[in-house]
Amino acid sequence: MRTDLERFFNPSAIAVIGASQDLATISGQPLKFLKSHGYKGKLYPVNPRYPEVMGYQCYPSLAELPEAPDLALILVNASRVADVLRQCGAKGVPYVIIFSSGFSEMGGEGVKLQEELIAIASEHDIGVVGPNCQGMMNLADSVYAGFGSVFNSAYEPGPVSMVSQSGGFGFSVMSLSSTDGGLPFRQVVTTGNEIGVSTLDFIDYFIRDPRTEIVVGYIEGLKDARRLLEVGEKALAAKKPILMWKVGNTELGQQAARSHTANLGGAMALYKAAFKQAGILQVEDIQDVVDYGRAFRCGRLPRGNRLAIITITGGGGILMTDECIARGMEIPRLAPQTVEKLRGFVPSFGSLLNPVDVTAAIFNNTELINQTLQAIIDDPSVDCVAMINASLQGELAALVATQIVAVAKNTDKPILLAWSARDVVAQEAYGMLDAARIPHYKSPVRCGRALAALSWYAEALRRNGRTRAEAPLTLSSSTARRAVASATGDVSEYSAKRILAAYGIPVTREEPATSREQALAAARRIGYPVALKVQSPDIPHKTEARAVRLGIASDAELAAGYDEVIANARAYKASARLEGVLVQEMAGEGVEASLGAVNDPLFGPAVMFGLGGIFAEVLKDVSFRLAPLTPSSARGMIEEIKGYPVLAGARGRAPADVDALADALVRLSAAAVDLEDCFAELDVNPLFVFEKGRGVKAADALIKPKTRDEVTQ
Amino acid sequence: MRTDLERFFNPSAIAVIGASQDLATISGQPLKFLKSHGYKGKLYPVNPRYPEVMGYQCYPSLAELPEAPDLALILVNASRVADVLRQCGAKGVPYVIIFSSGFSEMGGEGVKLQEELIAIASEHDIGVVGPNCQGMMNLADSVYAGFGSVFNSAYEPGPVSMVSQSGGFGFSVMSLSSTDGGLPFRQVVTTGNEIGVSTLDFIDYFIRDPRTEIVVGYIEGLKDARRLLEVGEKALAAKKPILMWKVGNTELGQQAARSHTANLGGAMALYKAAFKQAGILQVEDIQDVVDYGRAFRCGRLPRGNRLAIITITGGGGILMTDECIARGMEIPRLAPQTVEKLRGFVPSFGSLLNPVDVTAAIFNNTELINQTLQAIIDDPSVDCVAMINASLQGELAALVATQIVAVAKNTDKPILLAWSARDVVAQEAYGMLDAARIPHYKSPVRCGRALAALSWYAEALRRNGRTRAEAPLTLSSSTARRAVASATGDVSEYSAKRILAAYGIPVTREEPATSREQALAAARRIGYPVALKVQSPDIPHKTEARAVRLGIASDAELAAGYDEVIANARAYKASARLEGVLVQEMAGEGVEASLGAVNDPLFGPAVMFGLGGIFAEVLKDVSFRLAPLTPSSARGMIEEIKGYPVLAGARGRAPADVDALADALVRLSAAAVDLEDCFAELDVNPLFVFEKGRGVKAADALIKPKTRDEVTQ
Repeated sequence: MRTDLERFFNPSAIAVIGASQDLATISGQPLKFLKSHGYKGKLYPVNPRYPEVMGYQCYPSLAELPEAPDLALILVNASRVADVLRQCGAKGVPYVIIFSSGFSEMGGEGVKLQEELIAIASEHDIGVVGPNCQGMMNLADSVYAGFGSVFNSAYEPGPVSMVSQSGGFGFSVMSLSSTDGGLPFRQVVTTGNEIGVSTLDFIDYFIRDPRTEIVVGYIEGLKDARRLLEVGEKALAAKKPILMWKVGNTELGQQAARSHTANLGGAMALYKAAFKQAGILQVEDIQDVVDYGRAFRCGRLPRGNRLAIITITGGGGILMTDECIARGMEIPRLAPQTVEKLRGFVPSFGSLLNPVDVTAAIFNNTELINQTLQAIIDDPSVDCVAMINASLQGELAALVATQIVAVAKNTDKPILLAWSARDVVAQEAYGMLDAARIPHYKSPVRCGRALAALSWYAEALRRNGRTRAEAPLTLSSSTARRAVASATGDVSEYSAKRILAAYGIPVTREEPATSREQALAAARRIGYPVALKVQSPDIPHKTEARAVRLGIASDAELAAGYDEVIANARAYKASARLEGVLVQEMAGEGVEASLGAVNDPLFGPAVMFGLGGIFAEVLKDVSFRLAPLTPSSARGMIEEIKGYPVLAGARGRAPADVDALADALVRLSAAAVDLEDCFAELDVNPLFVFEKGRGVKAADALIKPKTRDEVTQ
Repeated sequence: MRTDLERFFNPSAIAVIGASQDLATISGQPLKFLKSHGYKGKLYPVNPRYPEVMGYQCYPSLAELPEAPDLALILVNASRVADVLRQCGAKGVPYVIIFSSGFSEMGGEGVKLQEELIAIASEHDIGVVGPNCQGMMNLADSVYAGFGSVFNSAYEPGPVSMVSQSGGFGFSVMSLSSTDGGLPFRQVVTTGNEIGVSTLDFIDYFIRDPRTEIVVGYIEGLKDARRLLEVGEKALAAKKPILMWKVGNTELGQQAARSHTANLGGAMALYKAAFKQAGILQVEDIQDVVDYGRAFRCGRLPRGNRLAIITITGGGGILMTDECIARGMEIPRLAPQTVEKLRGFVPSFGSLLNPVDVTAAIFNNTELINQTLQAIIDDPSVDCVAMINASLQGELAALVATQIVAVAKNTDKPILLAWSARDVVAQEAYGMLDAARIPHYKSPVRCGRALAALSWYAEALRRNGRTRAEAPLTLSSSTARRAVASATGDVSEYSAKRILAAYGIPVTREEPATSREQALAAARRIGYPVALKVQSPDIPHKTEARAVRLGIASDAELAAGYDEVIANARAYKASARLEGVLVQEMAGEGVEASLGAVNDPLFGPAVMFGLGGIFAEVLKDVSFRLAPLTPSSARGMIEEIKGYPVLAGARGRAPADVDALADALVRLSAAAVDLEDCFAELDVNPLFVFEKGRGVKAADALIKPKTRDEVTQ
């Protein structure tokens, strides 16, 4: 794949294939906009019907152009795109944008047409953007190569680069975001059906682009989703935050419903897990893009998550406290020396607790802001500061802004403001803040969300540093790989546990037996009490068939139990192939956990964790991570579920062995990586987690190998 | 309490007590703003220091005014407020606003001062607003009686009335909400410490006020919270939606932590329950106020929750689908005849499913919008329509808007638009939509939220109609009331269950016994198997003391068991007072539920429901309702918990007897109402819910009576 996307965004010549003289139509707009926004390179309309378009010489075919342009815009009917693409290949065009619709989004014939395009692009090494997209804007260099209402206006360029799978909506986000002192963009590209250059290719380029500081993505789904971790890590290393807007949860959730475990969270759970692991911030509306982007533009990150709030209105302070605490920030007590300082000037009916309420007394004495802010900035227990100025406006607002700017100059702690005055009545104040890159928001809720985003990202950077220091566990078992690869159907309990044991996951002691005598001998070796379970590929639900006996305590009970479970199994299903019984140690008392791994078609191996039974299956209280896991990410996924207190020792229980549980998760993830070519699903359910220091033990397991189709995919 | 608040909002004369000639200060501002905004009544500044202020004759004291004003604004120092309030009483002033700070918010001396004010107000029947507030605005009649930056501007009046406990933030909400074609307000009042006229008094007035159509509240806590249901029902009857912004969750949560059951959800859970029961819509940011308010101003409500989406950009459609499905709306398949119609004009690469994607082909043919919208409006399976126009702008936008307005005229189904063009490039289109009261939003997310709000409110109206048709269950037991009222400590298992049984809640069969012989006789009457539990006020945790035996199957086991539990109890605590044992039937297999009632100091009796053990205590998967419950609201609270599938029959279980469970909840709520004067907490845990048709049975219970302090409060 071509990666010299600088040429794509800043081409020295552009061909517009299918350019129309009707400038209102889709095929008329790109040339019009390129010209009206002052594109500096050469423009070559191509259309056999016209001698010229908009004053440019028009060529009957691409072959007749005097040079190979860096970029061709393809605006012809879907049925003719393949031909045109071949001509681009022959001419040596490195990049094309296919605007035309009528491909895979249409199904049927469209899918075939699209496959043809992929083949042609591959043959000629053409970097294809689209089809079914609305083009690209390089605002910094005035390249407006697309169509749509948004292209009518020019936008102030800035340091934000965005890739969007949706054309219409993507440009709307850019347009609204850059309005009214919002977030200025550098380049925006829409990728549509994305048969060539992908969202992650563009993000990867933005990370390398020296003039991009913040990356925004709008996606419906990623064909190369498993690259998310790698791209995320590059972005963290470059300290360029990625704001990701993922939509289409409901549909994708259904798509991925085929495997039982992934079904618990749907594919969205894997996206969320990947974003979290990769330090990619999720956004949920246009306002988030603007608000978070503005926060990052201040160029400061908090050292920790401790926030101090200063407010002139108690209401705003409470609101921000709610918002920030809900998003994992801390609102600490201020240091005693800070409180002492504040006592000198905050009115007695104000509050010296955090939030510090200086009250409307600000109207009688604006010095209050300056003094309070400085005292709090100096407090070593504070990592960042929010100030809430309600609707202060006019001269008073300008006075206050001057003081804030002065204090901000002498600290590297982020200061964010919630300031609700309308733009028209606080222009001077807002202008000063903008010049000093001090982010301000119209509501405490939005300010709180932006602060929490900064704090989350700073923590992701710190966490990434720690995780990189951990050596990833790599395990390999050729025996296990052979066993899974050669399986013709589900690998059931006994064999599945042998395979898991090969990766060091503790399993119950057990032996298969095909006669009463063998079972007796096995039970004596294992030691009473034991469990007996009928083994049959035809009886998946052994309990339902009453083909399980637990807590067998003696030879006599065992003999009777053997006869009973065999008889029950026969009665349940006369045709069942019986392979004898499994004699198993009783696992003992522990918390039941459910561990799983899926081999997701998009993400590759991923690990799931939850408590057993209802907790995972009904309440969906589960967590996901892409494999491989480090010990600290395994801890993270254990602590993330709501039921975690059960393991930590809720309701008078002794704390469970969470270290051993984390180790089992790490080993399961390593197994999933080792078995990637051949497994579809690994299930360990239940895994008993014993008291701290006593380990874990898998009591049942199931491995689904890849079906032949999946293997050859 | 005075309720003629028309006089408060539209006074014919206002005294400004403590008016200052320094117009920048808090005490200088109200007179300045009243004058500058053209207040039409009489103004009487009162201050012994000046002969005149701003050209008005200034009076040395209130007594010397030529008349009793309808409203007095009190701007003097906290220490002088009581005197001034007495003068207001003597003069016969019906309403005052106390702006001064320094009362209960300060603690200590401030609390005493505030109590004095309450006494004076009560003695003279003065309607007090404040103290510690920022005043009031009646925008419709140009009464700007307050201070703060927001008062510098004049605002277009409209049909929205708002009460806010926060002064600074409340006025900020109004100011921002009414900006740029937002939501116009009729009257706004801030109530601060709220010692007199309360938030609910104002809301009650707004419901009666013929010119108010939409009510907004911003609250930190309600002293008269139990009136929420009554006020909510009045609002539903008047079809005036209430948008409620409740903040301060974290603090209030701690306050209410004293009672174990309420602790599960904190008081915020009761607010949420009350809002839900009362049809009050919760909002979470200024944008919600504007967006929901604009949706309600269209004057249309959907008949059901079925939404059709038309979009010119696939991305926007997906986004809105996610948002609306997450908020409980349905995106149904369109009727076959609708799809047939659409096939005639939607491009083949568009989508005829819901969302209907007409694609960017709109640029080539604007008729598409008109035709598609009309076809979908005519579909009987559609209750409301959203249309997503991305960033359409200029002439094209105006054309499209004309068509939408035309279609909207001939239907009463709500049509909401997501339209992301900036205001400056779509003024004409937006102007037409505003004139026709067609709500439009800059992002599909906001449009989706607003639609869901409309739909939620319409459903609340329908539900209220249904609920009112149900006769509320009233139960009364003087025996039970006496038992709880006379209890000197917690009422434990046996007695608590007798009390619950008096209200018709099924309990296990059981008999107390003080000797082995009595126990044997009881067990024979009850029938084996039985359980034995030691009864002692000094052993609250019987299992821990090994003073419980379950599943006793014969006389011999019973005799042995009796000796054993008595001995264990003695060994556990030698000094324990033993009252014998409880002989109890074994309840049998069922789903364990946890039912509770709290007697909340703010809300009165409220009922809690959850599954037993970890589900309620660790996962906090519980629901709340204020008592009394109707059968359908009990069903609602059962179905609301995430664990509901366990009762409905998840994982191969038979469905549980949800009807009997709902009946038990209704009875528990009736008991809580009957016992309101004397109980603090009713706990039924576990209540076994058997298979459908087999009922429920309380296996353990505890009643905490009110302490002496609480009773005399």
